Amino acid sequence: MKAVGRRRQITTSKGAFKMAMDAELEIHRWENGAIRSRKDCVAQEAPLEIRINGESLTITMRTPGDDFSLTSGFLFAEGVIQSYADIETIGYECFNSEPDKRNLIRVTLKTENILAYDRAKLERNFISTSSCGICGKSSLEAVRCLAKPLTDHDFRAPATLFEKLSARMRASQSAFDKTGGLHAAALFSNEGEMLILSEDIGRHNAVDKLIGRALYENRLPLSSHILLVSGRTSFEILQKAAVARIPIVCAVSAPSSLAVELARELNITLIGFLRGDTMNIYSGVERISA
Amino acid sequence: MKAVGRRRQITTSKGAFKMAMDAELEIHRWENGAIRSRKDCVAQEAPLEIRINGESLTITMRTPGDDFSLTSGFLFAEGVIQSYADIETIGYECFNSEPDKRNLIRVTLKTENILAYDRAKLERNFISTSSCGICGKSSLEAVRCLAKPLTDHDFRAPATLFEKLSARMRASQSAFDKTGGLHAAALFSNEGEMLILSEDIGRHNAVDKLIGRALYENRLPLSSHILLVSGRTSFEILQKAAVARIPIVCAVSAPSSLAVELARELNITLIGFLRGDTMNIYSGVERISA
Repeated sequence: MKAVGRRRQITTSKGAFKMAMDAELEIHRWENGAIRSRKDCVAQEAPLEIRINGESLTITMRTPGDDFSLTSGFLFAEGVIQSYADIETIGYECFNSEPDKRNLIRVTLKTENILAYDRAKLERNFISTSSCGICGKSSLEAVRCLAKPLTDHDFRAPATLFEKLSARMRASQSAFDKTGGLHAAALFSNEGEMLILSEDIGRHNAVDKLIGRALYENRLPLSSHILLVSGRTSFEILQKAAVARIPIVCAVSAPSSLAVELARELNITLIGFLRGDTMNIYSGVERISA
Repeated sequence: MKAVGRRRQITTSKGAFKMAMDAELEIHRWENGAIRSRKDCVAQEAPLEIRINGESLTITMRTPGDDFSLTSGFLFAEGVIQSYADIETIGYECFNSEPDKRNLIRVTLKTENILAYDRAKLERNFISTSSCGICGKSSLEAVRCLAKPLTDHDFRAPATLFEKLSARMRASQSAFDKTGGLHAAALFSNEGEMLILSEDIGRHNAVDKLIGRALYENRLPLSSHILLVSGRTSFEILQKAAVARIPIVCAVSAPSSLAVELARELNITLIGFLRGDTMNIYSGVERISA
């Protein structure tokens, strides 16, 4: 794979190629009966357009940083690529312009993928968004995901393993600390070691970034891993997890009805309200031992 | 306006035309060192396809209930209709089928609107989603919204008015109480009276439902009203508020950088972290008096 831009995203607040996940600004605060001005930090939200082989595929509202992972994870989750090596080149449109203006990514696929890539069909069938990749499917039937059920039952985990996962993720959410406005997704090993953490203003983008990073690190399939998301789980999160073959998906908050339904169909263990030493197990309880 | 289906959505869990916002199911819970089965409630998530004049416009993942408000609010926020009267007919595709299968809404616009309605352009320019209506815009330039800045500065409110708004909204979130998985949007009068409350699994859908309801009740423009959302505020929430001419937008949680930027551009007062007797004011502080 030939990288056109810089592969590594710069997410620190220093340096010439600043691409901050947060923005500082002057605000006012109402407290103790008075309005006073003060400095504050908010999560960055900016559009990112993805072009494949020269044609615009989608625009997503995302938090800048790790955009190549976001792009590749998204393309993988949608079935466009099977590995990072399927990408011929990936890079920003205007590498030399202001870093904050880097909101257009160009991807070229390897020849064999170009042949298989039906942009028109893909465009009809999905559109990525800051929190719902499912939208824009051209018919209700297309909403069902294509991922097959997980058949491997070998991966089991003791319930106590989960007790520390959310605290571990929370401790690493540096951008959330500053803004209170970012979702996170974390990938854990079967022993509860945190391998990847991603943050984004969109729940789905955080998962795409995580999958893209795992793809880049040649970790796929993630069949002995645990995914933890900071918010809720929807249909789309389960769909992405299924494509990456993640057997256990946990969330700090609630799942939707469709997330539970899909988890049960696809034989994924779905955990919700993971808070310290309690959790709800919505499907695949056989993977969890007391 | 001729209603093809039933105008009123039935959202209670009883009756022949049940369209519940939540679903009961059997789950397992890890607590006090043991895994036990129990009943639980999750928020409904189901696709809704919207067809205009026979052609599919979009699919959104939403919580069933108040689908006509969702549809009309969405069409209004996107500039397709200017009032509820612009709709000739609105109804479910399969009115007599199972209520839970009612996931296709057909809208016909009045003749003059049909002439003005350029579906191809609209389809290129937006796609609605369960939480981001902005996605799918065909170019980065199209991301900027078309709503003009608010010019009216007459509406001012004392900071103390806001102290009870989130508690008032929270007290009415019946579906959230059961599931913990739904966003809410509430419309308040300039005296803090709650006029409309809507709930949905998607943040943007909750706002669309609210605007659609206000449209149906002939309340637009909402130029002396306050919008409160349960979660965070993004670019898209501000865009919808601007189209409905809402001068003050509050959120229980954080805004994004782009939400602040747009609020400042459009002269909307944006409040975040509204929690009891404290709040952050990100723009338009002149409308708030201490």
